[in-house]
Amino acid sequence: MSLRDEMTRIGQRARQASHVLGNLSTAVKNNALEAMAEALVLAAPSLKEANAADLKAAQEEGLPFAMIDRLTLSDSVLSRMAASLKEIALLPDPVGEVGRMWTRPNGLTVGKMRIPLGVIGIIYESRPDVTSDAGGLCLKAGNAVILRGGSEALHSNLAIGAVLRKVCRELGVPEDAIQVIPITSRQAVEELLQLEDYIDVIIPRGGEELIRFVTSRSKVPVIKHYKGVCHVFVDASADLEMAQNISYNAKVQRPGVCNAMETLLVHRQIAPVFLPPMAEKFKAAGVELRGCPETARILPVVKGAKEEDWSAEYLDLILAVRVVDDLNQAIHHIIRYGSSHTEAIVTQDYTNAQRFLREVPSSTVLVNASTRFSDGFQLGLGAEIGISTTKLHSFGPMGVEDLTTSKFIVYGSGQVRT
Amino acid sequence: MSLRDEMTRIGQRARQASHVLGNLSTAVKNNALEAMAEALVLAAPSLKEANAADLKAAQEEGLPFAMIDRLTLSDSVLSRMAASLKEIALLPDPVGEVGRMWTRPNGLTVGKMRIPLGVIGIIYESRPDVTSDAGGLCLKAGNAVILRGGSEALHSNLAIGAVLRKVCRELGVPEDAIQVIPITSRQAVEELLQLEDYIDVIIPRGGEELIRFVTSRSKVPVIKHYKGVCHVFVDASADLEMAQNISYNAKVQRPGVCNAMETLLVHRQIAPVFLPPMAEKFKAAGVELRGCPETARILPVVKGAKEEDWSAEYLDLILAVRVVDDLNQAIHHIIRYGSSHTEAIVTQDYTNAQRFLREVPSSTVLVNASTRFSDGFQLGLGAEIGISTTKLHSFGPMGVEDLTTSKFIVYGSGQVRT
Repeated sequence: MSLRDEMTRIGQRARQASHVLGNLSTAVKNNALEAMAEALVLAAPSLKEANAADLKAAQEEGLPFAMIDRLTLSDSVLSRMAASLKEIALLPDPVGEVGRMWTRPNGLTVGKMRIPLGVIGIIYESRPDVTSDAGGLCLKAGNAVILRGGSEALHSNLAIGAVLRKVCRELGVPEDAIQVIPITSRQAVEELLQLEDYIDVIIPRGGEELIRFVTSRSKVPVIKHYKGVCHVFVDASADLEMAQNISYNAKVQRPGVCNAMETLLVHRQIAPVFLPPMAEKFKAAGVELRGCPETARILPVVKGAKEEDWSAEYLDLILAVRVVDDLNQAIHHIIRYGSSHTEAIVTQDYTNAQRFLREVPSSTVLVNASTRFSDGFQLGLGAEIGISTTKLHSFGPMGVEDLTTSKFIVYGSGQVRT
Repeated sequence: MSLRDEMTRIGQRARQASHVLGNLSTAVKNNALEAMAEALVLAAPSLKEANAADLKAAQEEGLPFAMIDRLTLSDSVLSRMAASLKEIALLPDPVGEVGRMWTRPNGLTVGKMRIPLGVIGIIYESRPDVTSDAGGLCLKAGNAVILRGGSEALHSNLAIGAVLRKVCRELGVPEDAIQVIPITSRQAVEELLQLEDYIDVIIPRGGEELIRFVTSRSKVPVIKHYKGVCHVFVDASADLEMAQNISYNAKVQRPGVCNAMETLLVHRQIAPVFLPPMAEKFKAAGVELRGCPETARILPVVKGAKEEDWSAEYLDLILAVRVVDDLNQAIHHIIRYGSSHTEAIVTQDYTNAQRFLREVPSSTVLVNASTRFSDGFQLGLGAEIGISTTKLHSFGPMGVEDLTTSKFIVYGSGQVRT
């Protein structure tokens, strides 16, 4: 069988399963999710064995430590995976929800009913725990999922997939609800991206290069997460201590993630009092600052920022700092250099708070809180399938509801058009 | 300037305008929409002059009558365009709406605020009235629009665009809110489809070939409308008169549109009493029937349907007819051969009505009403920018709200992540 045929068969099986999945009761889905959580814990020995094969190959190939760390299925990772499936079972089921209905002058009663997207393709790297997290979220929303992890995690992903599929078979869920692609060639991904008749959306999770590759090749719509160049703007009226806490937390608490701050914008009026103690704190945490000329005037030791620093996603203990004249300049800077991900203002000024919330066109905008809250769990979605930095379908952290769409339902009594 | 540079400039101007448009008050937008309606009527002589140039060229090239008809800017078309802009002014403004807010355990108050998509590209054929309809809808939702009509309508589109842009300039709206691309080459479209940094979504309006071309080339997300293979299922318990009225209306009232019925499914139990009088009515209206073997047994004069008839979008007075065993077989037929557009059931059975609404995965599903109601205006959206037959972002008729997305807004009081 050719690669194209093989991928097409995977797509067809997923589409077939999706017709059943869309009509499963919440009870059947939740029951399966809870059983999957238990099955993963029971299967720990065999999962670790499969994982050991991946780890051995990774070490032989000399993959970097951070990658090997993400690849490892430790007991704590396995119990987090199980806990996550149980949490997904507890979330409300979006499928079938009708927010409101309205009646037309001719008596038709019209509403929009939430339905699954259908078939979702996930392309990801390294982390085998995505296999169960994404599988569980897609199942909860009534979707079939096709999972294509990195070659370095193939044994682990197939082993996790087998555990989840066995639970499906036993509990009245089509096993093709969850399929792990066993082929790791790039050609397999390219074929996957052609299956517009069988896949409704592709969600790539990985670096910018992966996302650009998928977007340029895909006939299937792609939900994109490019990068997180997140800003904190310290306004003239900011509470100084709050501004320090938020800036410090946004940069230092976990610098390697997409919702960490990369650029700090400071109002000219407050910069002379805010920056020196802030710089001390950052210095103590090992943060390298790169500043605009005005920043360098206030903090003479600071390195000068180059043009490319303003759009850099460092994912590291490095921070660009710019002094701005006012809120307008801060918003212009964010629009020009930002990535539409997450921005925060620290202010005591009512009008500026409201203007920032309204006018900044990023997916999460916060007043007096750390950018680190831009996360599905922290915002109350219960779990996260990814973060979209483009506006179509979803913008920002995506939960179970973002894996659904809606159709019009109409109750009539014989109406025809005249 | 190269074509690429020229198209890029158009994209940049649209993006620039969109930052202003997203923050315009509802009053400013409505005022402009009403002024546009008046300006179109006042400019009727010059618009008709521009249109005459297009019509002359179309006649010289021997374009078909239907195309020339769609191209003509008559007084009645112009006043419909003006009326439509006034109706758009009366619609609620979705921008800034926050449906609900919730509070997290740490005190963060979180909500989702509707915001414009940003920049919308519309690719369309023939009809110059789309220029003002789409321009008005995009403006209402705070978006900049780039319009690329067919070469046969270029003079008309540019003239309409000039009228709308003049109103923008005079009333505090950036004139690049509405841009008509003056270049009619296919290369211009291809360049447009590369502008993922400046355009948020492309909506092609035209035949399946155009949609497939745009989808295969575009780096910008595309909202698709393939075809409408719509079904009516007459259940065993249907009221016979209602079933006849709905079937007749769905096929005959306007056969050339996407929400007209293309296949009639009839429950085996009711077929012998329903089909003969129905066939008489269709015959009187000039409808050609193509039936399954069971249909041909009941209506011996009927032509046999071939396999390709079940997925045909005739857009004409032709109807495929199939007798099915039950609701399950009807739903399977719809899933297998349909286009996910619009389906109706005629039934008096409560359970079957509810099952049909829930289980049929099409964008509009109706009980006891004609498929012809699948239309933004008829469903109560106020106006329609298009119909999506794929599930991402929007599914089914799209109104002003579908030209928006939403961002998370968060009110904090100094929260940081631990």
